[in-house]
Amino acid sequence: MHFASDNTSGAAPEIMAALIRANDGYARSYGADAAMDRVTALLRDLFQSPEAVVHLVATGTAANALAIASHCPPWGAVFCHTHAHVAEDECNAPEFYSGAKLVLVPGNHGKIAAETLGHALATTGEGGVHGVQRGMLTLTNVTEAGTVYSPSEISALTALAKAYDLPCHLDGARFANALAATGASPAEMTWQAGIDVLSLGGTKNGCLGVEAVVFFNPEKAWEFELRRKRGGHLFSKNRFLSAQMEAYLTDGLWLRLATRANAMGQRLAAGLAAKPGVTQAHPVQANMQFPMWPEGTHARLERGGAVYNSIPVAKGREAARLVTSWSTTEADVDSFLAAF
Amino acid sequence: MHFASDNTSGAAPEIMAALIRANDGYARSYGADAAMDRVTALLRDLFQSPEAVVHLVATGTAANALAIASHCPPWGAVFCHTHAHVAEDECNAPEFYSGAKLVLVPGNHGKIAAETLGHALATTGEGGVHGVQRGMLTLTNVTEAGTVYSPSEISALTALAKAYDLPCHLDGARFANALAATGASPAEMTWQAGIDVLSLGGTKNGCLGVEAVVFFNPEKAWEFELRRKRGGHLFSKNRFLSAQMEAYLTDGLWLRLATRANAMGQRLAAGLAAKPGVTQAHPVQANMQFPMWPEGTHARLERGGAVYNSIPVAKGREAARLVTSWSTTEADVDSFLAAF
Amino acid sequence: MHFASDNTSGAAPEIMAALIRANDGYARSYGADAAMDRVTALLRDLFQSPEAVVHLVATGTAANALAIASHCPPWGAVFCHTHAHVAEDECNAPEFYSGAKLVLVPGNHGKIAAETLGHALATTGEGGVHGVQRGMLTLTNVTEAGTVYSPSEISALTALAKAYDLPCHLDGARFANALAATGASPAEMTWQAGIDVLSLGGTKNGCLGVEAVVFFNPEKAWEFELRRKRGGHLFSKNRFLSAQMEAYLTDGLWLRLATRANAMGQRLAAGLAAKPGVTQAHPVQANMQFPMWPEGTHARLERGGAVYNSIPVAKGREAARLVTSWSTTEADVDSFLAAF
Amino acid sequence: MHFASDNTSGAAPEIMAALIRANDGYARSYGADAAMDRVTALLRDLFQSPEAVVHLVATGTAANALAIASHCPPWGAVFCHTHAHVAEDECNAPEFYSGAKLVLVPGNHGKIAAETLGHALATTGEGGVHGVQRGMLTLTNVTEAGTVYSPSEISALTALAKAYDLPCHLDGARFANALAATGASPAEMTWQAGIDVLSLGGTKNGCLGVEAVVFFNPEKAWEFELRRKRGGHLFSKNRFLSAQMEAYLTDGLWLRLATRANAMGQRLAAGLAAKPGVTQAHPVQANMQFPMWPEGTHARLERGGAVYNSIPVAKGREAARLVTSWSTTEADVDSFLAAF
Repeated sequence: MHFASDNTSGAAPEIMAALIRANDGYARSYGADAAMDRVTALLRDLFQSPEAVVHLVATGTAANALAIASHCPPWGAVFCHTHAHVAEDECNAPEFYSGAKLVLVPGNHGKIAAETLGHALATTGEGGVHGVQRGMLTLTNVTEAGTVYSPSEISALTALAKAYDLPCHLDGARFANALAATGASPAEMTWQAGIDVLSLGGTKNGCLGVEAVVFFNPEKAWEFELRRKRGGHLFSKNRFLSAQMEAYLTDGLWLRLATRANAMGQRLAAGLAAKPGVTQAHPVQANMQFPMWPEGTHARLERGGAVYNSIPVAKGREAARLVTSWSTTEADVDSFLAAF
Repeated sequence: MHFASDNTSGAAPEIMAALIRANDGYARSYGADAAMDRVTALLRDLFQSPEAVVHLVATGTAANALAIASHCPPWGAVFCHTHAHVAEDECNAPEFYSGAKLVLVPGNHGKIAAETLGHALATTGEGGVHGVQRGMLTLTNVTEAGTVYSPSEISALTALAKAYDLPCHLDGARFANALAATGASPAEMTWQAGIDVLSLGGTKNGCLGVEAVVFFNPEKAWEFELRRKRGGHLFSKNRFLSAQMEAYLTDGLWLRLATRANAMGQRLAAGLAAKPGVTQAHPVQANMQFPMWPEGTHARLERGGAVYNSIPVAKGREAARLVTSWSTTEADVDSFLAAF
Repeated sequence: MHFASDNTSGAAPEIMAALIRANDGYARSYGADAAMDRVTALLRDLFQSPEAVVHLVATGTAANALAIASHCPPWGAVFCHTHAHVAEDECNAPEFYSGAKLVLVPGNHGKIAAETLGHALATTGEGGVHGVQRGMLTLTNVTEAGTVYSPSEISALTALAKAYDLPCHLDGARFANALAATGASPAEMTWQAGIDVLSLGGTKNGCLGVEAVVFFNPEKAWEFELRRKRGGHLFSKNRFLSAQMEAYLTDGLWLRLATRANAMGQRLAAGLAAKPGVTQAHPVQANMQFPMWPEGTHARLERGGAVYNSIPVAKGREAARLVTSWSTTEADVDSFLAAF
Repeated sequence: MHFASDNTSGAAPEIMAALIRANDGYARSYGADAAMDRVTALLRDLFQSPEAVVHLVATGTAANALAIASHCPPWGAVFCHTHAHVAEDECNAPEFYSGAKLVLVPGNHGKIAAETLGHALATTGEGGVHGVQRGMLTLTNVTEAGTVYSPSEISALTALAKAYDLPCHLDGARFANALAATGASPAEMTWQAGIDVLSLGGTKNGCLGVEAVVFFNPEKAWEFELRRKRGGHLFSKNRFLSAQMEAYLTDGLWLRLATRANAMGQRLAAGLAAKPGVTQAHPVQANMQFPMWPEGTHARLERGGAVYNSIPVAKGREAARLVTSWSTTEADVDSFLAAF
């Protein structure tokens, strides 16, 4: 009954099998392996974006920080949600790589509201050189609150940024879960909605450790390569990243894994909804949920073998943080509900 | 006949087997996995250093840059060989992470000469705040020229740095090859010779992508953890790094793999020594060699299927760069010599 | 009728006279001039801090950014008010110099409330390496809202930070105005109230361009010197900084100038209080005030020759920002009130 | 008898007078003062460059570091002389501001030889992302060895850089001395010789502390303004910088001051040439010279009241470093020669 994080799961069998196959023989290093070309071709096809450029890194923080640094100058403002992963969980990596300043935009349930963003955009950089300038927008989908932006919601936010000619980034550490939750196509959720660069997560959804950075506008791609190397994120044996990503994207595996994780989330939420005194801090739309429950529940669940974290959701109030993954089984969910 | 780099080889079967075992079930993330504790215990034992602290990253550049940044302030001088990997092959990563300046110390065959280092140390920082201050020493073993420092050579250089209280780092991307070449113990080659922090390479010697940073003086280890996260180098599924490193260090696998790579280097060098007109740019002591040969040889080798690079060794002169690895076979060497 | 900023004023006659005297003959460069020693002696005496170390720079942003960088590691949180100068008016300089992250702490009238700071301190860095760690506290006195902390208010805030062993910085761009407003001694307002390092402003209060950074704990002073040089802030002809600061501190000039600026602020506030429909956005305690007035007033004032800025004080509401200085005359104030 | 540095001199009377005039009344801050417009007009005229953009800072290190950072990306190589001020005397400021790496190009008498630069350019960045890329060229005139490049020598070097489309910077901390020494016009020495951005020094040649950064290609000028503010180098009371620069450039003052400094250097060199056992380490072409003299001379000069520094000019060999300035008198020189 592991619900602490989708990164406590292992890798899906298809991914491990691909890794083993990739180990055969010699391969060119530093991204010149043949599998890397196939990854690019797959992503161009899946995203209907024939010019897209793709580079791989091994962690989500690297993907985000490098994508941001490639699009925002050191005197720029990166508009992000107050509780975005880039703001709270990356120990300053985006600032380290870019030199820029994160401007925190609040909003309910992990989502930036258009009005709030509009105000932040309008009031930034108005003081000339004294303050940071409008730099870029970064959104997260699935959000840190487990909620999901629809393509039209993303479009509405990126349109505000585009009015100032700002590039837009999407932190898609759980991108497949967002697609599975909305039924949107990869293109609809990204470049058709105004996204210029995507961090496409594999690690949390069944890979060992791989993230793709997808540039729909390839202009910044060479700069990214230099920043990646300078950050120590270029793998010599890149084949072990490309093999994961290739298998992940082949025959819809990524969406199957995410669909399962989301479905287990729904099953868990449905079960909890039937329990007295349980409320969800945020709508349950993908594979994370934040239920609050009566005193004594936590001790009971822990005795029953449930593993998960609790986090503050407001001053003085805590919620459980339950994450389902590709490897969560119906039995896991049902045991949890039984222990409840 | 792949001699381009030890990073065009795949992973050793024992490493892959360990990775597959590690994939079973759930594991705590971000380095709290049980295998990580075993890695630390193994390294403490192998290095006879019961207080050593160990952290893993996935690339050699990350290991070096983070180790240096943890030991040198932004106004410090990092003394390194003119052709050190940190100087020539990491696209400014050490400077990016540390803010420090590399001070290049020349020396024959990739090795810093004591007198040269002494002069560099004596003349740095003498101008007060106007120039960078003495910061730290970083050595590489096996060197970029394929030569090997003995423990006493390392001691002689670190002693010069210690006279100024400087910390000393060893870039051991090919550390096992250096041990195999000299017969020195891990302790003799590191802390007993004045090394404070080691980048212990796994990737080039049979792993998929893992390097250990070993702190013999644990004082800087927490800072390293924060720098690692801030650099995006903390793996959520750290078990896939620790599994590699555990297998690598178990039952002497790392030394067996390196011994084989070195032996193939010797076999190749012996064969080349018998060819007319071949000279080595540097003594052949581990698994890299830099032969220079008569015109026409390269074309013949290429037609024969040999894969390798050429690099400038002096103004206007090139040498081949031949690297053997754990996976190089006697047949590979013999075919190369036959094609010659 | 210049009320746009205290930095549109020139330098006080005593300062100019000192500068002219300082120009005579040769002087050692880079801070080794004799006047620099006298500045240190003066400040040690005025602050009753015989071990204090003093360095000069020419801008307030340099003073703040260097003081912060000398006390906060790159993975640290700098707690400051939401509208602090370091947060809004220095174009990322504190982050550039330190690598740290500013954590914005709201509070009424430009002042941090103890409860709010306590919450921010308690909740920062609790996530281990994933977020920035508690780093330091920086306060501003006079605040950006023109209000003044008393020594006991500063003590209350620094005590919260000291509970976590954090260093505390005071941005005293208008430090003399704060002393004049409260009657507190320099020592009471700083080290006796828990301040470790002070940016002591001269520029806004009658100098041409000089700020002293005063270290009550001299441990970081050498690091500061290196950071200052590395930032390009060490003057070769330092005598022209030390001459200003020496004159500024001699015979109470700094306090006389600030007292006059504050008195003119009070005169202006008293006059405005008598006007119908005028309210102050913040209490008027030093030399800045933020009155809001009936429509049409601004046009009338502008026609009358008044020069000042307006700034947003809340969503959709603007206030005038009127700053008096050492050079503001009673006639200036009275003309302004007459034009009203 | 002060020959330690041109920065131990004070400011020329014309500069002080201008400063006093500039202090009158109120002036717009942060570079919006009217005198700043006049400085721009003066420089455009003097350099025959009607589109040039000019910004002022107070130190040479700031001018150089900001100019470099505005023209070289963090993964770029800045080609400079081994003993350039940016390499040896700025405590890493250029790297701090730019993130780039200085590539040291040796050459006799402080000057880069074309062949050496050609080799450095040709061999940099050839390894793809593994090393830094060709970034920019920075020259110094007058050099740190006291020698002077002619416009055609500068052209020859910038032409090599332009072949790779690299921007070229000139560190002109002693630019007026270089003009006075060669008779070249400002335009001939800069943009007509391939220079894109100039650090034009005032401090060493009779100002209190001011340097102009002149952009012949204005494309980077706004970026420079943001970098300047972010570095803490924007003066609120900018009028005190512009007043210096305006007076400096008016009626040829800058060239008169430099001509005097150079003439005193020639007088000193001529006198020393007549002394037995004195040799110059470098040709004496402007206001710095590096004589080497018989043992015992230094003690004698010191007793006679001469103030100057000695520096190493080769392993184990020292030379005196004698600098004349605008304020050096014939009597100073003659007393020195008499004490000899």
